[in-house]
Amino acid sequence: MYSHETSFRVRYAETDRMGYVYYGTYAQYFEVGRVEALRSLGFPYRRMEEQGVLLPVHDMQVEFRKPAFYDDLLTVRTSIVELPSVRIRFAYAVFNEARELITEAATTLVFIDRATNRPRRAPEELLRALVQFFK
Amino acid sequence: MYSHETSFRVRYAETDRMGYVYYGTYAQYFEVGRVEALRSLGFPYRRMEEQGVLLPVHDMQVEFRKPAFYDDLLTVRTSIVELPSVRIRFAYAVFNEARELITEAATTLVFIDRATNRPRRAPEELLRALVQFFK
Amino acid sequence: MYSHETSFRVRYAETDRMGYVYYGTYAQYFEVGRVEALRSLGFPYRRMEEQGVLLPVHDMQVEFRKPAFYDDLLTVRTSIVELPSVRIRFAYAVFNEARELITEAATTLVFIDRATNRPRRAPEELLRALVQFFK
Amino acid sequence: MYSHETSFRVRYAETDRMGYVYYGTYAQYFEVGRVEALRSLGFPYRRMEEQGVLLPVHDMQVEFRKPAFYDDLLTVRTSIVELPSVRIRFAYAVFNEARELITEAATTLVFIDRATNRPRRAPEELLRALVQFFK
Repeated sequence: MYSHETSFRVRYAETDRMGYVYYGTYAQYFEVGRVEALRSLGFPYRRMEEQGVLLPVHDMQVEFRKPAFYDDLLTVRTSIVELPSVRIRFAYAVFNEARELITEAATTLVFIDRATNRPRRAPEELLRALVQFFK
Repeated sequence: MYSHETSFRVRYAETDRMGYVYYGTYAQYFEVGRVEALRSLGFPYRRMEEQGVLLPVHDMQVEFRKPAFYDDLLTVRTSIVELPSVRIRFAYAVFNEARELITEAATTLVFIDRATNRPRRAPEELLRALVQFFK
Repeated sequence: MYSHETSFRVRYAETDRMGYVYYGTYAQYFEVGRVEALRSLGFPYRRMEEQGVLLPVHDMQVEFRKPAFYDDLLTVRTSIVELPSVRIRFAYAVFNEARELITEAATTLVFIDRATNRPRRAPEELLRALVQFFK
Repeated sequence: MYSHETSFRVRYAETDRMGYVYYGTYAQYFEVGRVEALRSLGFPYRRMEEQGVLLPVHDMQVEFRKPAFYDDLLTVRTSIVELPSVRIRFAYAVFNEARELITEAATTLVFIDRATNRPRRAPEELLRALVQFFK
């Protein structure tokens, strides 16, 4: 398994009138988590797109356990739990500053060849970077 | 079962550089769907809040089947599949103008008493409006 | 001068913990206003992009006079105050249900030829649709 | 004058199908800029709200000079150009990694007493932190 953590502050824009972070905002936090996880593997998502590979989200499951609030310094731990094939599965755990688990989630994304608009296998460069974590 | 449909156009802001509606945007579409479903029942969500009942989202499951694009006129069909207790479950189906099913989702929300910050039963007014659909 | 009005409801996502519509959300409302103004002229913005013309925003000025709130039914009146050249200027007035003026704004957008990435004149089709309003 | 710089990466969610950062997103970047500027003065915005002072935006002027793109590491330099009274004026300059100035903006915010919902003078604690920069 490969895991990576990244932290960021809740923006005022991301809260709603209940005073909580809006539930739809978390999708952005998961995006930040997986983008930074890929960067730390040496394979930025932007480079993948430049090589003609898109990675749209196929499905998402989220459980909201506790609210997050304005200006909270949140940490998202992003995990890749199995070697990707034509799909890649990310699991997310979001913690607040008291290290309480506030949200758990998972997403499946599909590697798409932009030229053909068809699914394809994960880029070799990504597999090579990941394989050491799955022995 | 109670179902309701509402339609809206995709905003430029809601797309991403892949040209698709950003996956996190759909949470707003589901919100629009359930808010309009409650309004059509004669019990606007805003009134519920004015009566001291909050309704945060507890969990969400989404399957993205096909992309949506800028300026698409989308329709979300929102269904309440069982009588609410302390929780209410909504199911969503999003269609494009060709009436293709592009996204399916479900969310669970919890009725919270704002004064005590504790879960509570669904408001009587909502149950009375819904009961005719569950005979 | 050409003016057009369109209405929409404030989403929960668009509010912030102050209970107001977040100030950055209005840019989306102005976008909805100008897109519907162009559609009512018979020249949808999407068609302009399909013809290879992009229309990025060059500048924006906003004055926030009164707050807007969750579930408000807002109306934006969008005006084109002069015939466009390589630029088009839109003025916006946002009203709440009590027809109070809550926000005034203006934006300048530039017509860009996607092939050359250079400014270009407004499409003839748009000018033809507009000219009758500027006699 | 007091100035402060803070940096962040462009999220995929913040781009649009033109491939640029959506023009409405910048309001969030300005928010991040002024919040971090206040934090660096030792007076976090959250504490101001806890003391019963709200700070809604009254007006905003933005000039978009160059586009920003996905994954760009942007820097916003936020300046307070005069001692606040019942209003506070922030100026913003956003730079890309090549240190090109891509966006310039300014906002005026008004100090509001939450209890009375009336304008009030800037908190003493903020004025004390700022006065050394305006001699």
